[in-house]
Amino acid sequence: MFCGCQFSLYPLNDRFVDIILSAIEAVGKPQDLDIQTDDLSTLVVGRPDRVFQAIAKAYAAACRAGEHVVLNALFSRGCPGDPDEPKCTPIRTEAGEEVLGSWDPLGIPVHAQFSLYPLGQQDYMDLIARTIDLTKREGTFHRSKHFCTRIRGDLAEVFKTVERCFADAAKESVHVVIHLTASKGSPSRVE
Amino acid sequence: MFCGCQFSLYPLNDRFVDIILSAIEAVGKPQDLDIQTDDLSTLVVGRPDRVFQAIAKAYAAACRAGEHVVLNALFSRGCPGDPDEPKCTPIRTEAGEEVLGSWDPLGIPVHAQFSLYPLGQQDYMDLIARTIDLTKREGTFHRSKHFCTRIRGDLAEVFKTVERCFADAAKESVHVVIHLTASKGSPSRVE
Repeated sequence: MFCGCQFSLYPLNDRFVDIILSAIEAVGKPQDLDIQTDDLSTLVVGRPDRVFQAIAKAYAAACRAGEHVVLNALFSRGCPGDPDEPKCTPIRTEAGEEVLGSWDPLGIPVHAQFSLYPLGQQDYMDLIARTIDLTKREGTFHRSKHFCTRIRGDLAEVFKTVERCFADAAKESVHVVIHLTASKGSPSRVE
Repeated sequence: MFCGCQFSLYPLNDRFVDIILSAIEAVGKPQDLDIQTDDLSTLVVGRPDRVFQAIAKAYAAACRAGEHVVLNALFSRGCPGDPDEPKCTPIRTEAGEEVLGSWDPLGIPVHAQFSLYPLGQQDYMDLIARTIDLTKREGTFHRSKHFCTRIRGDLAEVFKTVERCFADAAKESVHVVIHLTASKGSPSRVE
């Protein structure tokens, strides 16, 4: 299995270069992750829970340094075109459940929206509906929009929700993609 | 058929509010499009070619006003969960080909990456491969990355390519989604 994320940070201010570089530096160079940055995004490859933790760390660092900071992240697992990568294999309980990350509140309130795409299966709309129900059970659901679902909460709660949606969908679909947009500190009124 | 796009503009500077508001204003209120903005994104619903033209207009306006400006756009057509909306129906030639927009160069060079998701079909990887081939024929292909394909050129060429990929994929798949990230004026070295 291959798993990773292409993510980008957008600090909406003149200090964006320093904020982005410091945020990526905050992730460090963990041995269990491959990290590669270009001018459009940073790729993180590794175990799903580790990928979510690393990107939350980068985004939290950027949020603390900037005022209005947006994250865009494309999470993908199980793409049949990617090589099998042992370091991406999730840890599982004896019952076979994927072990997810532990999330302590970060004190950073964010608004977010995400879309989940289970590829290669005809009953994908049912799985998407179950994903939306899951955000309701997690307590982060805000409202549905065309093409995506809004969630909100502490940055840690939002990541916890998206990580769970990603893992749960992977029980039913080999290839799962999530696109997440998260925003902290927007001056716009939230509806 | 329902078709639309959720897009967001990220001018990486202190004047972001004015740049975003002016860019959305530049689109105006065309009668054939429904436009709705919240704090995370702007929804444009209408005929696919008109949606691409509107978002290119907004992004071009933002690019001209800012230095480094990023666009994120989620294009979707044919989602079975959306209502049938007559104003989204493409115009077709007598031979049944979808009429696409005409694109004059804008003098704005951009780097971009995008992912196309044909939902609900098992042979989706073949369609994705054909999409990448199409970017090569269009002359905008730059390189492949994990989870997405890089393209480059004038903003108009990049939009022309993505619009064509979207329309071509829809010949084979009822429900097609494209996520596009475009960047103008990044201070980072392009690889």
